[in-house]
Amino acid sequence: MSEAPSERTRVRRYHWLAKYDTETIHGIIDAMPFAHIAYVHEGRPVVTPIMQWREGDTLYWHGSNASRMMRSVDGQEVCVCISIVDGLVLARSAYNYNINHRSVMVFGTARKITDDDEKRRQLARFVNGLVPGQWDRLRPVTDQELKATALLSLPLAEASAKVRTGQPEDDDTDYCFPAWAGVVPVGVRVDAPVADPRNLPDVTMPPEVLSFRYG
Amino acid sequence: MSEAPSERTRVRRYHWLAKYDTETIHGIIDAMPFAHIAYVHEGRPVVTPIMQWREGDTLYWHGSNASRMMRSVDGQEVCVCISIVDGLVLARSAYNYNINHRSVMVFGTARKITDDDEKRRQLARFVNGLVPGQWDRLRPVTDQELKATALLSLPLAEASAKVRTGQPEDDDTDYCFPAWAGVVPVGVRVDAPVADPRNLPDVTMPPEVLSFRYG
Repeated sequence: MSEAPSERTRVRRYHWLAKYDTETIHGIIDAMPFAHIAYVHEGRPVVTPIMQWREGDTLYWHGSNASRMMRSVDGQEVCVCISIVDGLVLARSAYNYNINHRSVMVFGTARKITDDDEKRRQLARFVNGLVPGQWDRLRPVTDQELKATALLSLPLAEASAKVRTGQPEDDDTDYCFPAWAGVVPVGVRVDAPVADPRNLPDVTMPPEVLSFRYG
Repeated sequence: MSEAPSERTRVRRYHWLAKYDTETIHGIIDAMPFAHIAYVHEGRPVVTPIMQWREGDTLYWHGSNASRMMRSVDGQEVCVCISIVDGLVLARSAYNYNINHRSVMVFGTARKITDDDEKRRQLARFVNGLVPGQWDRLRPVTDQELKATALLSLPLAEASAKVRTGQPEDDDTDYCFPAWAGVVPVGVRVDAPVADPRNLPDVTMPPEVLSFRYG
């Protein structure tokens, strides 16, 4: 395990689950597009869901230029959390109940990206990251749409991960207590795509849609 | 649709998806124990995953009394977000891509609950909410464990929900564009429980473990 990149990034609770290596952090970020961002708006904390993607050591997300979040976070401190639930860990005591999970927490200053070419390129990366090649199949983005879309970035310099796997860790004396212990694994279920009834008659689903998965 | 309970609770983006009625808000909260909380720590925003549960018009979560979050939030403004992803909505333009989802956002002041009987009762509710009747099957909680556990509460007075379902809403002129549109539904997959190899030989799994599900 490598060291925490900054004091506030150092995991305190369950610190033995902490990971600071790039491979683990990038792996979790790349596995889960859904994330939550915290920011301060008029002095108060706000958390809102976002979809994030990554290029190199930078995290990206987008939204409406008119949104509260987008107006609040440019140049401001934010915290992004990406968390994947892998299972419920049923211990022999309530105190040792746990969740198998992979999570990443990133602290840093969000920066708006205003260059149109870079915005276009990153939005294409985002769309293609969900369904490969999909960007070029869509009605091309207009200048007005690009203008209405805010693209934000956050360096991954201050990131930490936490990973928990496996069976409960009960108190030594509890292993003789007659309660059933174990793990209920959970994950993401992706079901069969449902075509829009308004699709043109001769349009067929690109097989790449079937590769959408996460978690 | 009822009205927003406060100005900051009023949904601005996609405001036509907003719901402020108790039934919708409670339904989403009760369906998804995993949530994210934002708080301000040393002037900076932090978001961290929690497991929440509800009784009446109050949200609860627990953690270690020694944790940064638990030390930071008592008596402070927090924001809790509960979000459930139901599907990826593939539109004919990138701009109209969307996510089918159900989410709740709660603003308010967190309060620590210190009464031992109430803490015990709420923790039992939490454990039994995951696996019915499980609290009484576990090695009883000790006074020391109860002392180490912080219980926080948040009134649901300032809560709003957002619900999106169904197919994309493309620009009228895009319905003749020959791109496949549709929804890829997603949900939570709960797999078969895996017993701890250290279980006592005569211990069997309570059938209620199979009722654990969420989303």
